[in-house]
This record gives sequence, structure tokens and C-alpha cells, in this order.
Amino acid sequence: MRGETALIGLDWGTTTLRVYRFGASGELLERRRAELGILRVVNGAFEDALFSTIGDWLTAEKEVAVIASGMITSRQGWVETPYLPCPAGAEELAAALTGRRLRSGHRILFVPGLSTRGADGMPDVMRGEETQILGALAAGVSARLLILPGTHSKWVRCAGDRIAHFATMMTGEFYDVLRRHSILGRLMEGDAPDAEAFARGVAFGTREDAASGGLLRRLFSVRSLGLCEEIPAGGLASYLSGLLIGSELREGRAMFGDAGPLGLIGETGLVRRYREALAACGREGAALPGDPAARGLFLLARRAGVTPG
Amino acid sequence: MRGETALIGLDWGTTTLRVYRFGASGELLERRRAELGILRVVNGAFEDALFSTIGDWLTAEKEVAVIASGMITSRQGWVETPYLPCPAGAEELAAALTGRRLRSGHRILFVPGLSTRGADGMPDVMRGEETQILGALAAGVSARLLILPGTHSKWVRCAGDRIAHFATMMTGEFYDVLRRHSILGRLMEGDAPDAEAFARGVAFGTREDAASGGLLRRLFSVRSLGLCEEIPAGGLASYLSGLLIGSELREGRAMFGDAGPLGLIGETGLVRRYREALAACGREGAALPGDPAARGLFLLARRAGVTPG
Repeated sequence: MRGETALIGLDWGTTTLRVYRFGASGELLERRRAELGILRVVNGAFEDALFSTIGDWLTAEKEVAVIASGMITSRQGWVETPYLPCPAGAEELAAALTGRRLRSGHRILFVPGLSTRGADGMPDVMRGEETQILGALAAGVSARLLILPGTHSKWVRCAGDRIAHFATMMTGEFYDVLRRHSILGRLMEGDAPDAEAFARGVAFGTREDAASGGLLRRLFSVRSLGLCEEIPAGGLASYLSGLLIGSELREGRAMFGDAGPLGLIGETGLVRRYREALAACGREGAALPGDPAARGLFLLARRAGVTPG
Repeated sequence: MRGETALIGLDWGTTTLRVYRFGASGELLERRRAELGILRVVNGAFEDALFSTIGDWLTAEKEVAVIASGMITSRQGWVETPYLPCPAGAEELAAALTGRRLRSGHRILFVPGLSTRGADGMPDVMRGEETQILGALAAGVSARLLILPGTHSKWVRCAGDRIAHFATMMTGEFYDVLRRHSILGRLMEGDAPDAEAFARGVAFGTREDAASGGLLRRLFSVRSLGLCEEIPAGGLASYLSGLLIGSELREGRAMFGDAGPLGLIGETGLVRRYREALAACGREGAALPGDPAARGLFLLARRAGVTPG
């Protein structure tokens, strides 16, 4: 193992566990990824899952601390932490870490999630994204409106280096569930990207005309355009993807306005599709580089004064 | 068997087959229902399914004609019929029936579906509802805007005794799919009706404020209100139902306006929920009585000059 481990970070989500080994200045010495998200760990055997992934790191360094963020702190996770209300930044989050000891004696700290409330009174929550956002802000991101596309996309308004407000949109889960379980998937053949069908979906999703209805009506076009053979069966999955991303941009614009630069944090392919959809609306989305979760985890640990042991 | 059979009608949908035996003046002599919708009939054995349901009717009356409407004429059905474009009424539909012979020698006629196109260019389709609507219009319904709630709700604008335009909304399927396959179902416990939670869902779904976003954001409230314990786990299914029905009313209002009387055609329990949701918006929906599919089937057969044999 090269380099002395100063901290171990865990970005532990629903489907994936990502782990980071840091040097004393926050430099990333090593990273790993295991398909051991919380929904794949049975009977609460999180500690076993952790040791199967980084047992060697822990054995080699008896005193190192571990810091974890993500759905691992949810009700279905390892340690349920309360939500911290917005606005909140590194200071509030670092002050609210929940500590435990592993059976190996290592100290593990859990980052809380964040909550907010819309002007309409509706609550919203996140777990894990707050750490990515702090990492992105620490990396000098200038945009104060960030989109984190995914299963549950987050739109996040930042003020200074704190998270002021956010909203969740179920875009990715809608795509998955409608494609696999609704009648919309029936006419689809394959999922090779079809740029033309994707663009057509974005155009209809972003269309502001109220007479086009909302998602309950617009989504039926996936079927009707297929039945009428106006989009080939091989393009319907791309059309659905474009329609949902376009609808997210329309909802996001209504909620967060369309002024100012936009930053995108997420998987490369997904960020590319969002950039294409934004460009179709005449808007630019800057893809934020690097590994914001790793940076955020190190930042929070340091801010909390975490030292080995 | 009481009374002489003049016509047999089939309302053959995705999950259910409903059959009607008519006397010479259209009086309903007998009805049956079998859980033999087209998705439950394997290997295209529709004729076997029909005989297992009404073999005795057909055996008793060698010359009677059969008329069928619904998803039975779709690509996944028995005989695929083309869509007839709107506006269309009994005259156009009766002139476009597709005929076949059963192996017993009986004549069977299939009612075509309808298609329309929105001002935004999007196509829409129906199969089966056209027959119900004609039946309702023949029964003297005065409302010219009809809602047929269901898996795929139809909003239908009538002009005189013809169907002028319509839009499909995937409300029922969304409820089913999101409840069973998305994270929204995870916190739910049971589905006993919760009137307060339903009303709260309707209120949020019908809310016009653009800053509340659309369905991608609003649906996440099913989870966030559950996590924040603002709606009990036992009420979340009712909240989801109210939110989706309320969203349908909001979309329908944007597309079809909110002037004039509204008629509702569908299952009693579902129509009741729609009436409650409409009342919360200060609007009345008249539940249309009787069995409009049966009436529509008899009407179309007579209009087509169908005689026994």
C-alpha cells in the first residue's frame, strides 16, 4: 500500500459503495468501488460489507478514522442520522457528525442528510449529495445553481459556500420504472442511443404550452408515437429519456428561474445528456470535474478536527 | 335461457372481458364478466376464451351476431383494426366495422379505435372508450366534456353526438407502477382509504403555482411527507392517489378549460374519488349511470344494419 493513510472516506449509496483512501493533505491515494449499496446488503451486515471492501486498509492502519455519507445514514441504512435543516454548509454538517466504533476499534463518523421546505410547505430531503456539493464548492465552482442528475435528481441553490435550498425530481426512477413496468416499455426495442428521438423528447418535455398538459398526458406520447410509427421502436427509449429530462428542465426553470450559470455534477454520460438538453433550451451547463464526494468527505473530516484514532 | 338473443356484445379490455346478451329492442337479457382480458389470454386463443365464457349462448342461438370493442382490436389483440380519425360518431364507426366468422359459423364484428391529434401535433388513440361514449351520448348525456377515469384516463370533448377530440392521461397506470415498483411504495402500509390524506394529495396536485414544479418534483412529496412523518404510513397510498387525480384535473383544466358541465364514466369507486377531487376544485362531475358500453355496442350493431346470421 503506497502512502500513509490519513483518512478513509465512504460514499455509500443505494446501489454502490465508493471508498477513498486519503493522504494527510487530502490527496487521493487509492479508490475502490463495490456493488454493495445499502439495498444489496442483507440483515444489516454493513460492517461485514465494509471489511470485505477495505479490510486491508483498516488492518494496515489501526488508528485511521472513517467518514461516511449517503443513504447509509437513512432508515434502511446502518446508522440513521437526523436531517439538518437548510441553509447549511460545512460548519453545520461537521458539527453534526454521528460517531461510532467499528468492532476493529476504528472510529467511524456519519454525515447527516439535509432537509428543506418549499414555499408551498412541502418538505424535501437529501443524503449524500450535500457532501458532493460541499466538495464542488470547495473546488471553486462558481455556479450557484447546481443539478445533480440521477435516480432522484437534485436541483440545488447555493448561497456563498452553503446550501440554501433544493428540490428533488424523480427523473431517473421514472425512466427506470416506466420503461420496465409500464405499457410504455412494450413497444421499445433495444436502447441504442437515438439522438434524433432524444432531441424530439427534449423538445416536447421542455415545451411550455399549458395546452400540452403535464407529464400524465405527455408521457402517453411514448406509446402513441410508437403506435403511429412516428418514432421507430428502436428510438422510443431515447425519446422517453429526452422527454423526462426535458420535463425536469421545465420544472426546474419554473422553480429556480433560468438566470445565472448552471453546474452539473454526476456520471459523465448522464451529464452529457443533460448538457445536450440544456443546449436545446439555449442554456449552458458546466460539467464539474473531479470527484466531489471524496473532496467533500475529506473537507468535513478536517473541519470536524478528525485525527487518527 | 330467458328471452331470445338478438345480439351478443363484447367489451374486451386488457384485464377483463365483459359480455352482454341483448333482446331485439336492445334490452339487456344477461351479462357476464370473465377475468380473460387480452393480456391474460395466451397464444392468441381468443376464440377459446370466448367460448369458455359464452359457449352456451352461441350454441343456443346459431344465427346470432357478435360485436366487440376494446383492446381486443389492438396489436396484442385478436384482430387489429385501424384507428378512425376524429371527429367521428356512430355513423363513421358503424361504417368501419371489421367482420370475421367464428369457427362455429357466427359472424363477429370488431369496432375500430379512434385517433386524434393535439394542437401540439401529438397523436393520441383510444380503443373501447369510443363505444362507451356513444352509449352515454345515446342515453341523453348533456355534458360535452367527459372523463373516463382508469388505467389510462380519457378526457373527451364531444360535439353534438360525435367525438371531436380527446387526450389520454396515464393516471391509473402511474398509481399502480409507482406504488408497486418505485421507492414511493416503500413507506406505505396498507391501502385503507384515508380521506384526509387523499384530500391533501388533491390539494397539492391541483395547485397551480408553477414554483411547485410538476409531477417529477411533486411526487417526491409522497416520500418526503412520509419520512418527515407529516402523513402516516397508512395514509400514503391515499395521498398518492389524490396527488395523481389532482394532477390529472390540473392538466385537464389546462387542456380543456373549466367551463361547462362534466360527465364521468367509469367504475363507481373511482368515479366517487374523481367527484370528490372535482368538488375540492369547486367543480361538479355528474356520474353517468347505466352501462354505456352495452348501449354503445347495441347502437353500433343496429346502425350497421347487423341482423342475425
